[in-house]
Amino acid sequence: MTSPLPRTRFQSFTDRDMRPQVSGRIAALRQELVRQQLDGFVVPRADEHQGEYVPRHAERLAWLTGFTGSAGSACVLADKAALIVDGRYTIQSHAQTDLAIVTPVKMEETPLNTWIAANLPKGAILGYDPWLQTTDGVRQLESAVKTAGGSLKAVTSNPVDAIWSDRPKPPSAPVTLYPEALAGESSTSKLARIANALKEARCDALVISDPHALAWTFNIRGGDVAHTPLPLGYAVITSEGPPKLLLDNAKLSAEVRATLAPLANIVEPSDLMAVLGALGQSGAKVRIDAASGASALGRQIEATGGSVDAGPDPTALMKARKNAVELTGARAAHLRDGAATVRFLSWLAVEAPKGLLTEVDAVGALEQERIATGLLKEISFGSISAAGPNAALPHYRVSSASNRRIEQGIYLIDSGGQYEDGTTDITRTLAIGTPTPEMTDRNTRVLKGHIAISRAVFPKGVSGAQLDSLARVPLWEAGLDFDHGTGHGVGSYLSVHEGPQRIAKTGTTPLEPGMILSNEPGYYKPDAYGIRIENLIVVEPRKIVGAEREMFGFETITWCPYDRALIDKALLTTDEIAWVDGYHATVLAKIGPLVEGDAMVWLTQACQPL
Amino acid sequence: MTSPLPRTRFQSFTDRDMRPQVSGRIAALRQELVRQQLDGFVVPRADEHQGEYVPRHAERLAWLTGFTGSAGSACVLADKAALIVDGRYTIQSHAQTDLAIVTPVKMEETPLNTWIAANLPKGAILGYDPWLQTTDGVRQLESAVKTAGGSLKAVTSNPVDAIWSDRPKPPSAPVTLYPEALAGESSTSKLARIANALKEARCDALVISDPHALAWTFNIRGGDVAHTPLPLGYAVITSEGPPKLLLDNAKLSAEVRATLAPLANIVEPSDLMAVLGALGQSGAKVRIDAASGASALGRQIEATGGSVDAGPDPTALMKARKNAVELTGARAAHLRDGAATVRFLSWLAVEAPKGLLTEVDAVGALEQERIATGLLKEISFGSISAAGPNAALPHYRVSSASNRRIEQGIYLIDSGGQYEDGTTDITRTLAIGTPTPEMTDRNTRVLKGHIAISRAVFPKGVSGAQLDSLARVPLWEAGLDFDHGTGHGVGSYLSVHEGPQRIAKTGTTPLEPGMILSNEPGYYKPDAYGIRIENLIVVEPRKIVGAEREMFGFETITWCPYDRALIDKALLTTDEIAWVDGYHATVLAKIGPLVEGDAMVWLTQACQPL
Repeated sequence: MTSPLPRTRFQSFTDRDMRPQVSGRIAALRQELVRQQLDGFVVPRADEHQGEYVPRHAERLAWLTGFTGSAGSACVLADKAALIVDGRYTIQSHAQTDLAIVTPVKMEETPLNTWIAANLPKGAILGYDPWLQTTDGVRQLESAVKTAGGSLKAVTSNPVDAIWSDRPKPPSAPVTLYPEALAGESSTSKLARIANALKEARCDALVISDPHALAWTFNIRGGDVAHTPLPLGYAVITSEGPPKLLLDNAKLSAEVRATLAPLANIVEPSDLMAVLGALGQSGAKVRIDAASGASALGRQIEATGGSVDAGPDPTALMKARKNAVELTGARAAHLRDGAATVRFLSWLAVEAPKGLLTEVDAVGALEQERIATGLLKEISFGSISAAGPNAALPHYRVSSASNRRIEQGIYLIDSGGQYEDGTTDITRTLAIGTPTPEMTDRNTRVLKGHIAISRAVFPKGVSGAQLDSLARVPLWEAGLDFDHGTGHGVGSYLSVHEGPQRIAKTGTTPLEPGMILSNEPGYYKPDAYGIRIENLIVVEPRKIVGAEREMFGFETITWCPYDRALIDKALLTTDEIAWVDGYHATVLAKIGPLVEGDAMVWLTQACQPL
Repeated sequence: MTSPLPRTRFQSFTDRDMRPQVSGRIAALRQELVRQQLDGFVVPRADEHQGEYVPRHAERLAWLTGFTGSAGSACVLADKAALIVDGRYTIQSHAQTDLAIVTPVKMEETPLNTWIAANLPKGAILGYDPWLQTTDGVRQLESAVKTAGGSLKAVTSNPVDAIWSDRPKPPSAPVTLYPEALAGESSTSKLARIANALKEARCDALVISDPHALAWTFNIRGGDVAHTPLPLGYAVITSEGPPKLLLDNAKLSAEVRATLAPLANIVEPSDLMAVLGALGQSGAKVRIDAASGASALGRQIEATGGSVDAGPDPTALMKARKNAVELTGARAAHLRDGAATVRFLSWLAVEAPKGLLTEVDAVGALEQERIATGLLKEISFGSISAAGPNAALPHYRVSSASNRRIEQGIYLIDSGGQYEDGTTDITRTLAIGTPTPEMTDRNTRVLKGHIAISRAVFPKGVSGAQLDSLARVPLWEAGLDFDHGTGHGVGSYLSVHEGPQRIAKTGTTPLEPGMILSNEPGYYKPDAYGIRIENLIVVEPRKIVGAEREMFGFETITWCPYDRALIDKALLTTDEIAWVDGYHATVLAKIGPLVEGDAMVWLTQACQPL
């Protein structure tokens, strides 16, 4: 395949350069702050739903500072402006903003609130938008402002919006129905479970502010943000009586409206404050999702006489425990996706050694294979296609500027597909040419950690936090580690990053059957190469003879060979070798029937016993 | 040794039976509540310092309800009284209280605050003693009372004290100086570090409410509670100027007073509220230890105009990181204690199979060996000497009533000594006669977990929560587990239970060199037998060739053989066998020179390679 590769449909590689606009925009914001009698303003990356993907009209941080990373915040004062980002965005923030006007600050050293405490002048009034901060976030801002001797003020209209003349309109993608044949449970049944959960928590109502929860509860999907089929909106569910569903009418076809109408009273999102006000006036105790609920929600409920119970949205755990129908869908999506990935890898095995492919070329080729399945709706996130030193950045996203040729050494590809029956996420690390012994040692240790998670059995009640170290011990033994969690939750044709389950030291939610997680330990050598191996796994009940506890284990659902060239068999135990051989035999049995020709030849070879 | 065994000096086995007094005392309390215009009162087991050991005059829960366990609380209302205890105390609470008057409630099912929320009548006023609750505890009480529709009131004098006519006087054991030759750091140096920590935390003052912190900071010890050499008292340390040390004058000899006077202004504990009031009036921001600080402390500071910063006492982490002198002391104490334990075990190996010894006999014999070292100050906790089914209770304490004969099967002994140079804690599980294959399997799995912790290497920043599961995997693989943490922190001639470091899922404090921890996985088969293997270990820096991270590991400091009769070599890996053989060889080399005669013969045999 030496002809030009097709353009990708779901991913762009161009970085917008907004540096020339930054100084004018910050100056305009400062004028607006004076008008609003504020001495400073906080601009988070977040939107009203604290979402991972922010719609264009809510990209205030990017518009103002030029910084397009997935996390960060700015604080603009009269005489200085800070852009606070974590370590993985140090280089990018310096490249994207106007350094004469905005100072990038490393979050690990100086978090936003520490910066505010140290820089806000005494007596100054700092503004914030209560739609873009959670209640807990506001509490932290308050503490920082108090330390500085200033005061905090919630704005009623966002000053960035006031000066953003060419601001895009909010997204209005059609809402689609997610069939019960894929969801496995009717919305009626889900609503009944939620009402019960509210009663148990002694709450009168729940505000659903997380669009993932909205999509799950009403068996709907949308297209308002990138890569995740989310409909932006809200719902208010009461322990008695019909829920209110707040969705832009323009997103609803007659058919969708007719399906949803028996489930809920459908009203415009602009009615949200009125709906909350009515709840407040009734004296209701209202659960607000501590993770996604904007401070503005709780303020309205309390201002109108209600009380707020900040806590987890009860649908989060319900959504995380996939039912049998969702798991059947996930398995089918992974077989399809595995076959696409195997076709891609067999092609790459021929093309990459020629030394002409780039990271972007590889993304396009893999996307084409997924599109060729005929069922790809979207990719589940921007692919991490990383050659050599780029692979040492765990969150690398290839752009035209960073695009490297795939050359002798390591190539890592972390990608996934959104299919209507399931969301996939897979990483494979490949040797291009002959790897160094160090690369093979590191890859084998990462694989040992990956196998340890795959083979783990554990009693009911154990959380991902308790399993995380099992993936690290083989690296620790060599004085190595990696600086991210071992695994994240994954949705069912929803977000590829889903809580509350995680395999990470912060993942204290007990694992329960049906939860889908990634299993992706890694190793990163700065400026040299990086390794990560990722399958998706499902928590399942496990029978053990003589067991005294209810035991769980993991079912692996990703089917694609590991690169044998990067495995040092001498570092593996007999049990680990047996696990890899068993996995490869199953890959061949499951994916073999789905591929042919060169891909089948490659697969057969790749799946031989070690 | 068939002659009567000596009485133990440091431990009694008689349970006080206070059941006949309960109904009168509860009735008197109810009258007092009416007098104080209260509808109910909360009686926690805690004293003013939230200590593990409560002095006699503060044993309000025991005096009122008869229940003498180490955790629990009562709530007395006009028409009902609940005694809320955790599962390990279910049987004991039923046996000790008057069931006609007091209803034991299982904490895991109905925690105190849930019970209050469900049982306090609407409109009722519930009293609590702000000296016996932390600020966080009061917050939880408030929430429970609010749910019930009642109100919460802090009493100014405890109604239990008002009716407790024969209440013991507060303890007044002499304060002793802890020499710098054992502490390894002067109090002056410690006070300077604390003042720096206060400045870093932007606090003006620290209230030391934890007697362990008081003892460590001023290099003093005392004798006010059982088994831990604590002087009860307080200190208030300011970022500038001399500290205030609040100690009962009656505890201070002229020499001790003369040594402490240059370090601090010594005042009476009864001056505490005045000292805090002066701080408050100066507008100070005062750190109150969230774990041990009574709500009354913060109330006084806020009432007088100061502000409270609830957080960790900074000395806790300083105290946990033992210096080189303290570690030298700990190693010496453990050699001495190991030799005493070996002498005891060699005696037990001869005597136990005769079938005449009881659990109490064994405690006495072991205590005698420790006393014979000439350096034992105290035992570090009431020994867990448990035969057969008693060993299935992880927190079993032998009493005259529970005392069993040591017969064919399993015998478990968990004990420790307080020496001036160090605190010890060791558990060994022994086969009496021939163990069943199941016992050997379980013991070997527990040993595998114990070895996994001993051999662990991990990067700086890793916490005990991340290591805990390593001790469980061999049990999980057979469908088994144990329901306690794997390890607790240990003090230097202070408490055998010391935070903040722990090897448990709640132990999120990063491990740092010098921290002493226990390593004690277990297995418990209800009504049958129990297994636990415990050594103390010290976090130490670890050099690994090619390491990219700063790595730590554990130095084992407990020296005593494991029972070979309970080890199934076939279940151990080559590395694990090598570890046990290496450990036993070191035990023989270190303890051999300290024992002689039969003990040396026994030790030599016990330390042969597996």
